[in-house]
Amino acid sequence: MTDRDSEAGAYAATPRTTLHRRKVRGRYDRATVHAILDEALVCHLGFVAGEQPFVMPTTFVREAESLFVHGAAGGRFLRSLAGGVPVCITVTLLDGLVLARSAFHHSMNYRSVVVLGTAHEITERAAKLHAMRCLVDKISPGRSAQARPPNEQELAATSIFAIPLEEVSAKVRSGPPLGEEDDMDRAIWAGVVPVSLAAGGPVPHEPLVAPYEEPVLPLGLRRL
Amino acid sequence: MTDRDSEAGAYAATPRTTLHRRKVRGRYDRATVHAILDEALVCHLGFVAGEQPFVMPTTFVREAESLFVHGAAGGRFLRSLAGGVPVCITVTLLDGLVLARSAFHHSMNYRSVVVLGTAHEITERAAKLHAMRCLVDKISPGRSAQARPPNEQELAATSIFAIPLEEVSAKVRSGPPLGEEDDMDRAIWAGVVPVSLAAGGPVPHEPLVAPYEEPVLPLGLRRL
Repeated sequence: MTDRDSEAGAYAATPRTTLHRRKVRGRYDRATVHAILDEALVCHLGFVAGEQPFVMPTTFVREAESLFVHGAAGGRFLRSLAGGVPVCITVTLLDGLVLARSAFHHSMNYRSVVVLGTAHEITERAAKLHAMRCLVDKISPGRSAQARPPNEQELAATSIFAIPLEEVSAKVRSGPPLGEEDDMDRAIWAGVVPVSLAAGGPVPHEPLVAPYEEPVLPLGLRRL
Repeated sequence: MTDRDSEAGAYAATPRTTLHRRKVRGRYDRATVHAILDEALVCHLGFVAGEQPFVMPTTFVREAESLFVHGAAGGRFLRSLAGGVPVCITVTLLDGLVLARSAFHHSMNYRSVVVLGTAHEITERAAKLHAMRCLVDKISPGRSAQARPPNEQELAATSIFAIPLEEVSAKVRSGPPLGEEDDMDRAIWAGVVPVSLAAGGPVPHEPLVAPYEEPVLPLGLRRL
């Protein structure tokens, strides 16, 4: 990987990832795409079975230019992936409610990423354990060094899939509501209500055994 | 619609909506499904174009036993729906990070709904205007009565689709981490970090014209 391919680079837009409308919202640079993927705790994974699309929420983690997802070995969800079917992984961060003066211009501020690709299963033991550590550390950084690692039975019960970041695009809306000049004298509140995912106080599962570290919050999660 | 079909009733589980694993997490009662759909601000809509699944985040609203989504008339996204193709709409509310004593038992608390069906376009003028009002009121209750209604051009520029709630299931995980008896003496914090979507202070788009009401937050959105 050269410097040009790293954070400073961009994904090539393809016919399937090129925005046809509101092109100004499209982002293809790796830094923007990676930041969205790293902040999001859940992705929505789409696959086709028969002619029916299915969209499943699941945890995931990015490492370099791959996403890892996991699930129960033999489960219907991941069995569908094992055949090398095309998938779409979409990640959405909601940033605000955009309240305009006209119904038409109501909107949301958000950052989203769409990844098109094919999943392949990671079966090599060291690579699989590494991906599992990444998944645990995503929801609480550093935690994979504290938690008991998977035993043989747990390792066998888990399937890990990787999806390469090749055909990727992001879409971002930010800022105030749009509107028509004629609506500016309307007596109505207009603006943005910022929203974000926030954490409440941790609820311990007693009995806890000391010494232990307090849980570390994942990236981008604010305190309530 | 009889009383038995209302909130008190349940959706029939089908082969496509029956959980094969962790059946205890499955929910088919209307009250649970409606509550999740009404709290969520964004859905992920999956459809197939060619053999490729696409998953798009979009706003939506439930009314009775239908979901409404909207988009730009002529946009690629909604053009795909117009042909009566099967869709999957998935809605996910993240409730907590579940930090177990073992890597394997790490999880998330969440409430999700999966709707399988076919979208049909709403073209009748009154029904279309009604759905548009529902979409605006979803992100701020009562707002459709304050904002300027769509004019003819805006009405023509917007497509509205309805998806019936027929083949529907919910999935809910709540509560503390699971784990093995042998791990209970491990020195590690374990428990749940509650998470929820929260609103920050509204940012007005000046100049505002008085008199106006402060924006009303949608259902389930807490104050930061």
